[in-house]
Amino acid sequence: MPETRDPASAYRAAGVDLEAADRFKEKLKRIVGATPADGVIGGLGGFGGCFTLAGVGEADPVLVASADGVGTKLLVARAAGRHDTLGHDLVNHCVDDLLAQGARPLFFLDYIASGRLDEEVALALVEGFAAGCRENGIPLLGGETAEMPDVYEADGYDLAGFIVGVAPRPRLDRLGAAIGPGDVVLGLPSSGLHTNGYTLARKVILGGERSITDPVPWGAGTWADALLAVHRSYLAAVLPLLDDPALHGCAHVTGGGFAGNLARPLRPGVGVRLRRDAWAPPPLFEFLEREGNIARDEMVRVFNMGIGFCLFVDRREAGRVARACGDAGAAAVEIGEAVTGEGVTWD
Amino acid sequence: MPETRDPASAYRAAGVDLEAADRFKEKLKRIVGATPADGVIGGLGGFGGCFTLAGVGEADPVLVASADGVGTKLLVARAAGRHDTLGHDLVNHCVDDLLAQGARPLFFLDYIASGRLDEEVALALVEGFAAGCRENGIPLLGGETAEMPDVYEADGYDLAGFIVGVAPRPRLDRLGAAIGPGDVVLGLPSSGLHTNGYTLARKVILGGERSITDPVPWGAGTWADALLAVHRSYLAAVLPLLDDPALHGCAHVTGGGFAGNLARPLRPGVGVRLRRDAWAPPPLFEFLEREGNIARDEMVRVFNMGIGFCLFVDRREAGRVARACGDAGAAAVEIGEAVTGEGVTWD
Repeated sequence: MPETRDPASAYRAAGVDLEAADRFKEKLKRIVGATPADGVIGGLGGFGGCFTLAGVGEADPVLVASADGVGTKLLVARAAGRHDTLGHDLVNHCVDDLLAQGARPLFFLDYIASGRLDEEVALALVEGFAAGCRENGIPLLGGETAEMPDVYEADGYDLAGFIVGVAPRPRLDRLGAAIGPGDVVLGLPSSGLHTNGYTLARKVILGGERSITDPVPWGAGTWADALLAVHRSYLAAVLPLLDDPALHGCAHVTGGGFAGNLARPLRPGVGVRLRRDAWAPPPLFEFLEREGNIARDEMVRVFNMGIGFCLFVDRREAGRVARACGDAGAAAVEIGEAVTGEGVTWD
Repeated sequence: MPETRDPASAYRAAGVDLEAADRFKEKLKRIVGATPADGVIGGLGGFGGCFTLAGVGEADPVLVASADGVGTKLLVARAAGRHDTLGHDLVNHCVDDLLAQGARPLFFLDYIASGRLDEEVALALVEGFAAGCRENGIPLLGGETAEMPDVYEADGYDLAGFIVGVAPRPRLDRLGAAIGPGDVVLGLPSSGLHTNGYTLARKVILGGERSITDPVPWGAGTWADALLAVHRSYLAAVLPLLDDPALHGCAHVTGGGFAGNLARPLRPGVGVRLRRDAWAPPPLFEFLEREGNIARDEMVRVFNMGIGFCLFVDRREAGRVARACGDAGAAAVEIGEAVTGEGVTWD
């Protein structure tokens, strides 16, 4: 179709540079191409990513899907100028959500929206997603990168992630329902705040004179290092246990803390009693509680307190399961037990 | 765990109201519960949504997944104070992406992020997603609603959508690869701008004195009505054709316009020639071109020009396929043909 009027790009003048977007897509393909490709059919460039179920091999398969974001952890990343870990956070967060449901991950898709496409930042974000996909052995099957002037500040952005996994139906039916009074709750260590509580943590830590480049008071590293520690994936520790009859249920300690998440897998009439003295929260959590003058019951609703994932386990097998977790690099701690009752209480 | 310090909610003081979020979740469940539930296992409240493949029944099934946003169409919705159609836009957009690949949709998940959770606005957004899911017969399987002060303005928000569908492997292998020189390109009518080109359209239409509540110059309705027309779903017209041997390939005319999308399904050595005079763009597109002094070749890279979906069809069967589309409510127009060559050209 002949060009009939103004030869300049009206669209670019309006703030969207389609050619820059095309160059970006080529670099993107290289990053995405370095994630595991098992099951992937075709490449980027289609209208959707394709993943064959031919090799999945579960009996009575159920897809489990979850969508999530990183919350205001991204403001810490922006302040620190480190954009390459948020995507990794988000993949690991999504993987842990699937594990808590009893599923293993199959593939991941990302959404990145920004005020202006800063190629370096956007590629760092995608590198983070790719690193997370590699850690968990899944493809980055697709995604969307949107330039939205007037919605985000020029250097502002947001991320969302979407994961699909699979579980055999009998396992889904068993996990959670199998939890009964007397079961031991094993806690697996978190790597830091993971992706929750950042609005409060930023206010406490960065609301005053403190700089993100200052060293933390308890040892090595800066506040940026402590606050940007990557959300831990429990895949290596938990996946081998999902069909272990001693495992009765799981919880991912995320938004809503212990009360909001440990109650999720429980059937009516079963509650959880946790022991306050079962573990010492790492220094970052102690600091937040003290410096922010935050009530302990608020702390455990907002933060993971050093425990990012919980397993409900048959009491007679708790030692064996804890050792299996430890052998996989996740030192399990007995933090409480399932009881007759409702909800989450603390001793 | 006993409350040891400040009894006030430090977290709410930091700008996040967890109790409001809990109330919101209850209302959310009711809206989500009114979307189709075929295949869904369990309810909201798990760590991930569950969808059984038991009833899917495709031979050699391939999952097709896509992530997308609504772009700056949401700024039009905010300006008009109408938040209940964007979710519908996004579901239909995602469904059309799957159809273009040859897949039928199975389920949808949403991501909503805002500066402050305005319950009325957020529920309107979810109502839109639910309406889209109902139109396309799929469950709203899950989602995330994030409150992110300091990332978004108090009344600012963004949306992302994720869809998963399924297609039999042989169909995926056939569509696109089957397109050859001589195939007819049938265009199906769009309902408006769908979800692309809004940054430019807003600049042209709303950059000056014009108000979104003014009537459009060509007839009924306001600018808000014209700009917020819901992205059309082609499911009813296209799904019955996906295994029709006369259908050789599909394209969803979205970001990147005709050149960016009609080339996607083509194998090397096959191009597309479109006829400028095959159809008259609806008045909204004519207005944008004239008022914005936008070159025609820019128009067709940014906007759908009244054609939202294209079918590549065996020439001998084009009449029959066009009638089938018309019977399903989508009046097909022959807009060009596949040719020996590369890319998209215009007569």
